[in-house]
Amino acid sequence: MLRLVIPKGSLEEQTLRLLEAADLTVRRGSSRDYHGSIDDERIERVSLLRPQEIPTYVQDGLFDVGITGQDWIAETDADVEVLASLSYAKSGTGHGTRVVLAVPNEHPASSAKEIPPGTRISTEFLHLTERYFEALGIPVRVVWSFGATEAKVPEIVDAIVDITETGSSLRAHGMKIIETLMTSEPALVANRDAAGSPAKRAAMEDITTLVLGALRAEGRVLIKLNVAEAELRKVLEVVPSMKAPTVSPLSEGGYAVETVVEKRAVNTLIPQLKAAGASDILELPIAKIVP
Amino acid sequence: MLRLVIPKGSLEEQTLRLLEAADLTVRRGSSRDYHGSIDDERIERVSLLRPQEIPTYVQDGLFDVGITGQDWIAETDADVEVLASLSYAKSGTGHGTRVVLAVPNEHPASSAKEIPPGTRISTEFLHLTERYFEALGIPVRVVWSFGATEAKVPEIVDAIVDITETGSSLRAHGMKIIETLMTSEPALVANRDAAGSPAKRAAMEDITTLVLGALRAEGRVLIKLNVAEAELRKVLEVVPSMKAPTVSPLSEGGYAVETVVEKRAVNTLIPQLKAAGASDILELPIAKIVP
Amino acid sequence: MLRLVIPKGSLEEQTLRLLEAADLTVRRGSSRDYHGSIDDERIERVSLLRPQEIPTYVQDGLFDVGITGQDWIAETDADVEVLASLSYAKSGTGHGTRVVLAVPNEHPASSAKEIPPGTRISTEFLHLTERYFEALGIPVRVVWSFGATEAKVPEIVDAIVDITETGSSLRAHGMKIIETLMTSEPALVANRDAAGSPAKRAAMEDITTLVLGALRAEGRVLIKLNVAEAELRKVLEVVPSMKAPTVSPLSEGGYAVETVVEKRAVNTLIPQLKAAGASDILELPIAKIVP
Amino acid sequence: MLRLVIPKGSLEEQTLRLLEAADLTVRRGSSRDYHGSIDDERIERVSLLRPQEIPTYVQDGLFDVGITGQDWIAETDADVEVLASLSYAKSGTGHGTRVVLAVPNEHPASSAKEIPPGTRISTEFLHLTERYFEALGIPVRVVWSFGATEAKVPEIVDAIVDITETGSSLRAHGMKIIETLMTSEPALVANRDAAGSPAKRAAMEDITTLVLGALRAEGRVLIKLNVAEAELRKVLEVVPSMKAPTVSPLSEGGYAVETVVEKRAVNTLIPQLKAAGASDILELPIAKIVP
Amino acid sequence: MLRLVIPKGSLEEQTLRLLEAADLTVRRGSSRDYHGSIDDERIERVSLLRPQEIPTYVQDGLFDVGITGQDWIAETDADVEVLASLSYAKSGTGHGTRVVLAVPNEHPASSAKEIPPGTRISTEFLHLTERYFEALGIPVRVVWSFGATEAKVPEIVDAIVDITETGSSLRAHGMKIIETLMTSEPALVANRDAAGSPAKRAAMEDITTLVLGALRAEGRVLIKLNVAEAELRKVLEVVPSMKAPTVSPLSEGGYAVETVVEKRAVNTLIPQLKAAGASDILELPIAKIVP
Amino acid sequence: MLRLVIPKGSLEEQTLRLLEAADLTVRRGSSRDYHGSIDDERIERVSLLRPQEIPTYVQDGLFDVGITGQDWIAETDADVEVLASLSYAKSGTGHGTRVVLAVPNEHPASSAKEIPPGTRISTEFLHLTERYFEALGIPVRVVWSFGATEAKVPEIVDAIVDITETGSSLRAHGMKIIETLMTSEPALVANRDAAGSPAKRAAMEDITTLVLGALRAEGRVLIKLNVAEAELRKVLEVVPSMKAPTVSPLSEGGYAVETVVEKRAVNTLIPQLKAAGASDILELPIAKIVP
Repeated sequence: MLRLVIPKGSLEEQTLRLLEAADLTVRRGSSRDYHGSIDDERIERVSLLRPQEIPTYVQDGLFDVGITGQDWIAETDADVEVLASLSYAKSGTGHGTRVVLAVPNEHPASSAKEIPPGTRISTEFLHLTERYFEALGIPVRVVWSFGATEAKVPEIVDAIVDITETGSSLRAHGMKIIETLMTSEPALVANRDAAGSPAKRAAMEDITTLVLGALRAEGRVLIKLNVAEAELRKVLEVVPSMKAPTVSPLSEGGYAVETVVEKRAVNTLIPQLKAAGASDILELPIAKIVP
Repeated sequence: MLRLVIPKGSLEEQTLRLLEAADLTVRRGSSRDYHGSIDDERIERVSLLRPQEIPTYVQDGLFDVGITGQDWIAETDADVEVLASLSYAKSGTGHGTRVVLAVPNEHPASSAKEIPPGTRISTEFLHLTERYFEALGIPVRVVWSFGATEAKVPEIVDAIVDITETGSSLRAHGMKIIETLMTSEPALVANRDAAGSPAKRAAMEDITTLVLGALRAEGRVLIKLNVAEAELRKVLEVVPSMKAPTVSPLSEGGYAVETVVEKRAVNTLIPQLKAAGASDILELPIAKIVP
Repeated sequence: MLRLVIPKGSLEEQTLRLLEAADLTVRRGSSRDYHGSIDDERIERVSLLRPQEIPTYVQDGLFDVGITGQDWIAETDADVEVLASLSYAKSGTGHGTRVVLAVPNEHPASSAKEIPPGTRISTEFLHLTERYFEALGIPVRVVWSFGATEAKVPEIVDAIVDITETGSSLRAHGMKIIETLMTSEPALVANRDAAGSPAKRAAMEDITTLVLGALRAEGRVLIKLNVAEAELRKVLEVVPSMKAPTVSPLSEGGYAVETVVEKRAVNTLIPQLKAAGASDILELPIAKIVP
Repeated sequence: MLRLVIPKGSLEEQTLRLLEAADLTVRRGSSRDYHGSIDDERIERVSLLRPQEIPTYVQDGLFDVGITGQDWIAETDADVEVLASLSYAKSGTGHGTRVVLAVPNEHPASSAKEIPPGTRISTEFLHLTERYFEALGIPVRVVWSFGATEAKVPEIVDAIVDITETGSSLRAHGMKIIETLMTSEPALVANRDAAGSPAKRAAMEDITTLVLGALRAEGRVLIKLNVAEAELRKVLEVVPSMKAPTVSPLSEGGYAVETVVEKRAVNTLIPQLKAAGASDILELPIAKIVP
Repeated sequence: MLRLVIPKGSLEEQTLRLLEAADLTVRRGSSRDYHGSIDDERIERVSLLRPQEIPTYVQDGLFDVGITGQDWIAETDADVEVLASLSYAKSGTGHGTRVVLAVPNEHPASSAKEIPPGTRISTEFLHLTERYFEALGIPVRVVWSFGATEAKVPEIVDAIVDITETGSSLRAHGMKIIETLMTSEPALVANRDAAGSPAKRAAMEDITTLVLGALRAEGRVLIKLNVAEAELRKVLEVVPSMKAPTVSPLSEGGYAVETVVEKRAVNTLIPQLKAAGASDILELPIAKIVP
Repeated sequence: MLRLVIPKGSLEEQTLRLLEAADLTVRRGSSRDYHGSIDDERIERVSLLRPQEIPTYVQDGLFDVGITGQDWIAETDADVEVLASLSYAKSGTGHGTRVVLAVPNEHPASSAKEIPPGTRISTEFLHLTERYFEALGIPVRVVWSFGATEAKVPEIVDAIVDITETGSSLRAHGMKIIETLMTSEPALVANRDAAGSPAKRAAMEDITTLVLGALRAEGRVLIKLNVAEAELRKVLEVVPSMKAPTVSPLSEGGYAVETVVEKRAVNTLIPQLKAAGASDILELPIAKIVP
C-alpha cells in the first residue's frame, strides 16, 4: 500500500541490510535493478533512486515513504515529515556523517568566518553552502561539483564543502576540516498527505517500529545470569539503568536475571557482575528489540 | 552403524549444510571426495553419489539410509521406506521443486492432454514420462536427455519434461509450463530390512529428530516479551497458535512470555504485540527446534 | 594501562578473532600494521610481533601481557607468569599442537631413544631440541632452520623437530612422528613485576575473564526445554552434570529448564531429552560464558 | 611540461589501459588517487576528474590537454581544440556511444518531433536537451538527473535523454530509443593558448601519435607469408589494399611478404591466401602502428 | 551457413578457447546460454549441447558440423565424417584421453581377459563396454552410471569403464587401470549430406584450416637470428628439420634466418645456435600457422 | 644432471616466473610443494628452500646451482661461484634492494658513524651487522630478529638493519634510512667443485644463457620500420646505438629496418623515427634475446 524509495549508491548496501534485519527484505531480479518488492502487505513497491532526488520525490507524492540523508533534505529544502532518524552510515557503524568545510592544510583560516571574500568553493551541496555563507555575510563563489570534490584543491578551487565520515579521505588529500555545517544521518521520511491518511499512517508506524527494532538490536546483546537472593540487589545496582531488568525466581532458590546491554559495555560489565556475585553469566545475540 | 548416502551435485551444498545444522557434520579429506564420515556413533560411513542412483542402492541394501529427491524415487520405482520429507531445495529455501511438461511459448497446447500424438519429448525422467502419457493414452516419443534439456527445443525435440524450482530458466529459454507431473522435495529414505531391525530403527529415528529439528529452526525465531497481568490475555490472543507459549511469572509482577514464531510473520506480529500491551520485545535466533 | 603483545603470523587470525569475541576488538589502520589499539580503558596499546620473541619481551617488561605459544616459552626459558592456557590453534579448533620428532618413513628408529649419535636434526626449536637430547644422553647435531623444515629430509638432515597440528603435512612429506617433545597451546602470559601491581593485576584478571568467557562459549550452546513436573527428575538426570541447570516454574504448571551443553553432544542429547519427556526443546547460540 | 586530465568513472579503466598501451602508463599510489604521474618528460602531471567538468577546466587553462567525451564538450559548450577523436568506449570496443531520447515502449511517439509539449524529460545533459527542443520548437520541461536516469520512467518523468552504448540497458527498462541527439566518442582536447605555444604543440603531437598508434594496433595483426614468384601477383591481389605489403626476395627463390591486416578479417583472409598459393603464413600480435 | 554444435561441460572451456584462437570467437549473452553466434559468414549458428548427444545429432542432420569426443562417436556408432582429429583435452594440453577398464588395486585381474564372468561393471559407455566384452567372450553385467563412476568400487560394482586423462583420479580412489579400450581426443565431424554439398564442403575446409592453424601454433614460436656467411651452414644444420628456414641476405653481409620451432625445444636449441655462430637470436610468439 | 635450489618466500613468485620465461618451467604437484622438476635434461631436480640457508647448502655441495640474494651470501660468508647477478626483485622490476640501517625519524644520527655505542639493533643479518660496526669501531648490541623488524622501534630496540626495496615500509613505520650497508640482487651461484666439472660447467652456462636471455628481453621490444633510401641514414642516426640494426632491401625500393630497443624508450623514439622519415613502424613483443 505504501510506495517506498531508498537510496541507490553509497548507502545502498547498508540500507538493504537494515531492511532485511527488519524482516522487510527487498527482492530484486538482479542487484542492478532499480525496482523491487517486499513480501509485506503494507508495502506496494520499492524503488532505488539517487539520494539527492529522494526528498523532492517524497514531497511531491511520487512516493509515500523514503530513506535519504538529512543533508539532502536540507539541500533541497523539501517539505516532508521525518518519521525517524536512523543511526547508520555507509560503513555500517556510525561515526556520524558531517557536511564540513575543508581547506588545504597550509590555508591560514581555522574557521568558516576566516574564509576571505571571493574564495572559490567546490561542493555537491550548492544551496546549503550558499545559504551558509550568506548567513555569515561572506561573498564566496560556489561551484557545482560532480564528484571527486576532494581532488580539486588547490589547483581548481580554494576550499570544498563535502560529506565525511571519519575525515580520513580529506586528510589523505592534504586538507583540514575547519567547520561543520551540519551533522547528518539517514532519515525515514514521509509525504505529508500520505501521513495524514489513517491507514497509511498506521502502516508507516509499523514500518518505523520494525526498522528501529532492528537498528536498536545492532550493538546490543542479552545478558542472562543467576544470582542468590542475598546478592540480588548488588547485582541489580551494577546493571546499566536503561531499562529495568527481567527478574524471575528459580525453583532451587535464587533468581534468574535477564537484561539487554550495549555490546561495547560488556567488556567492563561482565567482570563487575562477577564481582557482585553473579554466576552462570551468558551473553546471547539479539535480532530485534522493541521497547 | 548406519550406512548413509547423500546426493552429489545440485543438492550437495544444501544437504551438507543441513546435516551440519543437525550436528551431523560430514568430514571429508577434500570437497571432491565421494566418501566421508560423521563423528557420531550411529553413523558408520557416508557416501555422496548421484541422486538418480540412490533409490535403487537403498532398496538393494547397499546403504541403510539415504537422502534423494522424490522425483528419482518415482522414476526408479524403488521400494524404500520414507522416514521424512525434507522441505529444502538447491537454492536453500523452498519454492517447491516440480517435474513439469514444457513447450515453446508459441506451441498451441495448454495442457498435457492437448499434446499431439507423435510428439518428441526430451527428458531425464524416462519412465515417469512414459507412464504419464500411457495413462493419458497419447503415444509420444520419449528421448533420453543427458542434461541441458531446455536447450533442445524446438530444433531437436518438440517438448521437454524437466525439473524446475521457479520456472525462470524455462521462461528464459522461451518455454511455457503446461503441466505439473509431480511435485518433489528431498526425502530421508530407509532400506526396508534395516528399518525392521530395532537397533537400526532407533538410530534412524534419532537422525530424523535431529534433521527435522534443524530444518524446523530455519525460518523461525524466538520472541521474548514482558507483559502486565491485566494484558496477558490480550497478548496471548495475538500470538500465533501453533504451540502454547511459555509463560513465567516475574519477581516484580507481570509475566515473561516466550514463543517460537515464523521469521516471515515477525514483520506483522511485532506491531500487533506492541499494540496489545507487550513491552521489551526481543527476537533471538534459534539453531534447533524439537517439539 | 596494560601494554599487550599478540602473535603475528600463523596464530594471528585466530587470536584477533578470539579478542573480538571477547569484546576486545583490535583496531588497526590496515591488516599489515604492527601496532593497534583496543577501545578499552584497561589496555593502553597492542602490538603484533613474532611469537618467538614475545616471551622474552614480556619477561623484560617491554609489555605487561602477551599471547604466545607454550612452545616458545619453553624454547626461550622466559620467566613469565602464565595467566591462562588458551585452547585454540591456527585452524581454530584444537587438535592440540605438538612439538614432535619426525624421521623419514623408512628410518629404522621408532622413538627418540633409538636416534643414533651424530644424527643431524633441523629445527626452529634449537634449545628445546638440544636440551631434550642432552637429557637422553645422545649427542646429535642440531641445525637451525629458518622454516620449511619438513622439506630438508633426507637430502639435508636426517630428522626434524617441528610443530604440527594433525601431522598431515609431515605425512605428506613422507615422514613419521616418533616422539612428542611437548604439547603446546597458546597462553596468556604476564610480566612478573606488572602482575605484582594491584591495579594491573585487576586489569589482567578482567582480561582473562573475558577471553576465557569467549573461548568457553565456542562449541557450546544453550538448550531450553519445557517439562511436566512428573518428568522433571528424569529430564534432569539426562542433562550433562557440568553445571546445575536453571529451573523455573511456568504459569501453566510444569517447568522451564535451561542448560549450557557441548555443541558436539547435542546430537545424542536431544533424542535422550525427548525420550525422557522434554518438549519444546530449543537450541540457541551463545557469545560468552562466565561461570 | 603538459598538464593532462583524464576522466574518473566509467571511462577510467579503458583510458588507463589505452595510455599504458601508448607507453604513457599512469602511476598512482593507489587506484583511488586523483593525481598521478607519467614517466615521460613531456607530461608534467596527470589528474583524474569527472568528465563533466573536464571541458571547462581545459578551456580555462587549468589543464593543457584532456580526454573527455564529445557529449560533455557539447553540453558545456567549451571552447577547446580537438586534437583527435578516440574510437574506444567504456566496454573497450566501440559500438559508438550515443546521446539518445528514449520513451516507454508504449509511448506513441516514434521521433523527437512527435514529443508533445509539456513533456517532462530527465537527463544529465540539461543544456544539450534544452537546445535540441528549442531548435525543434517544442516547449518541454527538462529535469536534472543525478544518475539512474533510466529508472525514472514512467513514474517520475515521461522521457529521458541519456547516453547509451548498445541500448540494452534502456530496453531492459522497457524503453525504446526514438532519436539520436548526437554520437559521441572520447576526444583528446587541448587548451587553445597552450596549443599555440610551439613547444607544447610539439609535445601534444607526440602524445597524439602515441595514443593513436596504440589505438590503431588494436584489432590488427601482422601477416607474414612466403610465395613463389609465379603466384606472387595472385597473392598480392588477395591482400587488403589499405597499404602496399612489404615484399623481399628469398635466397631460395620466391618472396617473403609482410602486411598488416584487420584481426577480424583474418579468418577469411588466411584461407584465401592459401588458395592463392601462399605458404608458411604466420600471424603475429602488434602493439603499436605508426604509419 | 553451417550449423555448428560444440560440447557443453568438461571440454567447454578449452573448445571456446580454441575457437577464439582460430578467430571464430563464440558470442553468447551469458556463459550459461546454450546458443550463440560467431561473427563469420560461414557459420549460421552455434549450439552447446552434451557431448554424448552430439554424434547422433550431426548424423541426423540437426547440425552440419560438430566437435565431440571420439569416445562418444564410438559409443553411439554414429555415421559421421571425421574432418580432423583435434589434439586437445579438458586440461588444455594433451596427455591423450583414454577409455579404460579399472579395478580396485587388490583385484587379481591384470588385463580385461582375466575379468571373471558375472563381474558387475559401472560405466557411462554402455554399448562400448558391452561390445568389448562380447568380443572377448566374457559375459559381464554392465550397469549404467550417471556420473561419479569411480566412487562405486568396491561397494556397488566390481569394476568400472571410465574416461581418464592422467589416471590420477582413479589412483586417488584406490584403483588400477588394467586395460585401455580406446584412446580418444576431440574430433571435428560433419554430417555426410552436408559434406557432399560443394558450398558447405568449402566452408568446412576453411573452418578446419583455421582451427588446425590455431592448434598448430600452440607450443610453437618463431626464431629469428643473424649469421655470418661462413657459419650459415653450421647454423642451418642445428635448426630442426621440420621445414626449411627462411634465409634472406643482409645489407651488411651475412644472412637473416627465420624459422618456426617447438617452444619446448627452445631451451636446448638456443644454446646450440649460439655455439654454432648465430647472433641476435630472437623468439617471438605466434598466433597461427598455416603451412 | 644439475641439482638446483631456489628461494621459497618473498622472491618465490618472481623466480618461478623468470624460470618460466627462460623455458625452464618448474613443475610441482601443488604450489606448496618444496620439490619439483624441470622438463630439461640438464636439470635433475629443483628444491625450494629458505634463501637464508641456500648459500651454505650450495657451498656444501648439497646442490650444484642455486638462486639466492647477495645479502645472504654476504651474511653467511659462503664460498660459492657467482655465475650471474640477476636484476629482478620481489616486485618484479628492480628498484635495487638494499640492506640499510634505519632509525626513528627523530633520532639525531644521520649516518652509521653517528650511532652511539651501546645502541640496540634488531636485524635478520646478524653477522653482516656485527662486522659492519666492528669495522667502524662502534660497540653495539645486535639482537636477532625473527621478522617484523620494522615494528620494534623504538619500544624494543633503537635501530634496525633491514632489507628494503623502496624504503616505503620503513617510512610508513616512522623511520629514516641513514646508511646503506650493501646493495643486493638475486644471484645465480654454483658449487665450486661442480663448476670445475666440464659437463656440469657446460650445463651451467646453458642455464645462464637462458635465464639472462629471458631477463634481457624484459623491457625490450622489436621495432620494425620501412624507410626510403634518401632518409635511411637519418633514421639510422636516431636508432639507439646499442647494436647495429638489421637492414634489408625491399622489392619496391627502400629498406626494411629491424632493431631491438628498450620498451621505456619507445614513447620518445617513435615520434623521432617518424620525424626522420620512417614509415610503417611496428612494435613487437620479444620473449628472449641472446646476443
